[in-house]
Amino acid sequence: MIHVQELITRKRDGGEIAAADLAALVRGITSGEVPDYQAAAFLMAVYFRGMTPRELSAWADAMLHSGDVIDLSAIPAAKVDKHSTGGVGDKISLPLAAAVAACGVAVPMVSGRGLGHTGGTLDKLEAIPGFDVRLPVERFRQLVGEIGVCMIGQTERIAPADRKLYALRDVTGTVESIPLIASSIMSKKLAEGIDALVLDQKVGAGAFMKKIEDARALARTIIGIGKAAGKRVTALVTEMDQPIGRAVGNANEVAESIDVLHGAGPADTRELTIALGAEMLVLGKAAATTAEGRDKLAQALDNGTAFQRFARMVVEQGGDVRVVHDPGRLPQPRLRREVQAARSGLVLGIQADSVGVAAMLLGAGRRRHEDVIDPAVGIDLLKKVGDPVTEGETIAVLLVNDEAHLAAAEARLLGAYRLGDGPAPAVTPIVREVLRDTDPEAAA
Amino acid sequence: MIHVQELITRKRDGGEIAAADLAALVRGITSGEVPDYQAAAFLMAVYFRGMTPRELSAWADAMLHSGDVIDLSAIPAAKVDKHSTGGVGDKISLPLAAAVAACGVAVPMVSGRGLGHTGGTLDKLEAIPGFDVRLPVERFRQLVGEIGVCMIGQTERIAPADRKLYALRDVTGTVESIPLIASSIMSKKLAEGIDALVLDQKVGAGAFMKKIEDARALARTIIGIGKAAGKRVTALVTEMDQPIGRAVGNANEVAESIDVLHGAGPADTRELTIALGAEMLVLGKAAATTAEGRDKLAQALDNGTAFQRFARMVVEQGGDVRVVHDPGRLPQPRLRREVQAARSGLVLGIQADSVGVAAMLLGAGRRRHEDVIDPAVGIDLLKKVGDPVTEGETIAVLLVNDEAHLAAAEARLLGAYRLGDGPAPAVTPIVREVLRDTDPEAAA
Repeated sequence: MIHVQELITRKRDGGEIAAADLAALVRGITSGEVPDYQAAAFLMAVYFRGMTPRELSAWADAMLHSGDVIDLSAIPAAKVDKHSTGGVGDKISLPLAAAVAACGVAVPMVSGRGLGHTGGTLDKLEAIPGFDVRLPVERFRQLVGEIGVCMIGQTERIAPADRKLYALRDVTGTVESIPLIASSIMSKKLAEGIDALVLDQKVGAGAFMKKIEDARALARTIIGIGKAAGKRVTALVTEMDQPIGRAVGNANEVAESIDVLHGAGPADTRELTIALGAEMLVLGKAAATTAEGRDKLAQALDNGTAFQRFARMVVEQGGDVRVVHDPGRLPQPRLRREVQAARSGLVLGIQADSVGVAAMLLGAGRRRHEDVIDPAVGIDLLKKVGDPVTEGETIAVLLVNDEAHLAAAEARLLGAYRLGDGPAPAVTPIVREVLRDTDPEAAA
Repeated sequence: MIHVQELITRKRDGGEIAAADLAALVRGITSGEVPDYQAAAFLMAVYFRGMTPRELSAWADAMLHSGDVIDLSAIPAAKVDKHSTGGVGDKISLPLAAAVAACGVAVPMVSGRGLGHTGGTLDKLEAIPGFDVRLPVERFRQLVGEIGVCMIGQTERIAPADRKLYALRDVTGTVESIPLIASSIMSKKLAEGIDALVLDQKVGAGAFMKKIEDARALARTIIGIGKAAGKRVTALVTEMDQPIGRAVGNANEVAESIDVLHGAGPADTRELTIALGAEMLVLGKAAATTAEGRDKLAQALDNGTAFQRFARMVVEQGGDVRVVHDPGRLPQPRLRREVQAARSGLVLGIQADSVGVAAMLLGAGRRRHEDVIDPAVGIDLLKKVGDPVTEGETIAVLLVNDEAHLAAAEARLLGAYRLGDGPAPAVTPIVREVLRDTDPEAAA
């Protein structure tokens, strides 16, 4: 039996902990043998002291092996997933997974739900009536093999250590720790049976990481865990100041995703889909270069093969495919409240996190785990950064069912828009940096 | 209801927490309303971030008021106690309390037991058959009023927050935090109803604080808490490299205390008694200067009034006073094992903590709370630092009942002695520094 107090003290004092001790600690925390108060003290010590690459790889590995690891080795195609650290209006997984699958790389995607301004990928998919994200692993494996894509929720048996640790971190002020975030992400992603991962590392006002240095540090830490586990990881550090695309919600994000799958949709949503997908194709050896990957993805979006793949997935996962062909059949709100510009000028900025809070106030996201999401509600942003507006022009539409917090949501949304006379904000590319496991800085 | 997670995060990020929130936190932790895992995370954050003087005084005050505060205001004499941060062979409370009381300052002493190389003051007193340290508060108050001294154990109702916090710190690697140590000490001492406190802040190999800077920091923090509570505190930073006096154990430490109360005993035990007592007389206004205090103390030890006061206390607390008059009646060990010098030379050093461990191995101290102390066993050091020895000469005597760990204890003791050819170690005064609440560095 490990002497937990000694491990806490060693971590507290900046010492390194042996892999076997970390593995025993993760097991003990998961089983409850190590009491929560010792786990909490250890987590806070990690918050202050960090983890060495060696510790981190042992810790993540122990979390991974606390539950089932899906074996996809029988599927001949390369298996590559994408993980986003989370942003407002981030529906990219929907068009991306289908488009990448259409290009020959399998995408076995297991998502969590978590809390947030809008639902997670699972909640968005569930806006399609009948769509089942609780498939058994056997069916998941079959679909990944047959159609190259399947999107399900984290099962009870995947990385139970992470569920336990996350619940504890959530109430002990230890969420914001790079090694703890990175190991939480990777323990779940590595359990999917992937060969490689593309990380969408958000940075900016609407992201968890506000500063580029922190975003880089997290991305490099995740790359390091992948490297230690023998999995390739490429990270795109992407802009998250204004929301992605025009739709913020659930059903409306599905509709925007379908637009992108038809070769249309907002430019930034399409660009992010192509940029992330291109790296997935490179890691999956379906493209020799990022440029070639971009071309293939653009074609798949433009020629309908990506859309067909998405429709197939919806059918196989029990969803009503009629809504894919006619997004007007998606859940619609009772009320559409237009929000007008208070002055003429240019949109100089849209504070993504405020838009997210506004959407949550309307019922599009969860404040507490027990909250129920209303798929029909949310926000459509008609004006984005750089657009000119005239006084009284509609800049956004609130999609409303429950008016309880409508006034607050409207005020939040108005506050999120920064209107002015210019100069026009510089157009920054949505992808700010690409970090690869072949970079010299990548931790081992 | 306080939002505990927010308080943890604020402390973690180096922010200051309001007094009312800290008070609510202490209450919640004590009642169990705040779960232990949140308390543990908070304590670890305090370990790393410390506490501001304002926070600390609120925290200590909340701990103090988590239980009963003894009201001694009806007693006209000044009430001054002494607290030692703990050392090997530290029996000073016994002669000190009686001598100070004999000089007209009342000493209401409430002690804990804790873990340690040898027993605490309570365990030493209990080596006197019949001595009762569990008197009710009313009787304690009566004896402090009538004979100026009473020594009892911490009751369930004194600072329950400290018991709870200490148990948690003990298993979460958060013992070694100056604000947490200081508030733990002061919450109990302030509950005694004292007007002032003299702190014996140990420093050295046998002390909790090995470095003078850490010892000073703890002493100044304790002085600061006292100041905020309107209680005067003087701290003596005293040497704890070799054990204090000659006796390390329980019954043998009582015997050495009685020697000191007869105006005899080892020079360092007497000196420390006089030095600490003089400051208590000054704080209690029974002496205008430290020098006057020293004179009065020396007289009380030499003229028998201190001894009489001790004997009176033993009688009133139910102890067999015959052992005070004839210490040969104290519990005696079955076996006395002499330990011989392996070479001739000088005693260059005696590592106090190793002597402590040797005594504990013989049964004189507790490794775990449930351990039972054998009052008869321990170690008598015949040679101290600076003494010449010849090969084969007895340097110490092990007082043994249970021989199970005798060999290990003997090896530890031999290892503790550093014999050599000299030069003779410099004679350092046992009191290294005096820190007062009137010093400019004293925290407010």
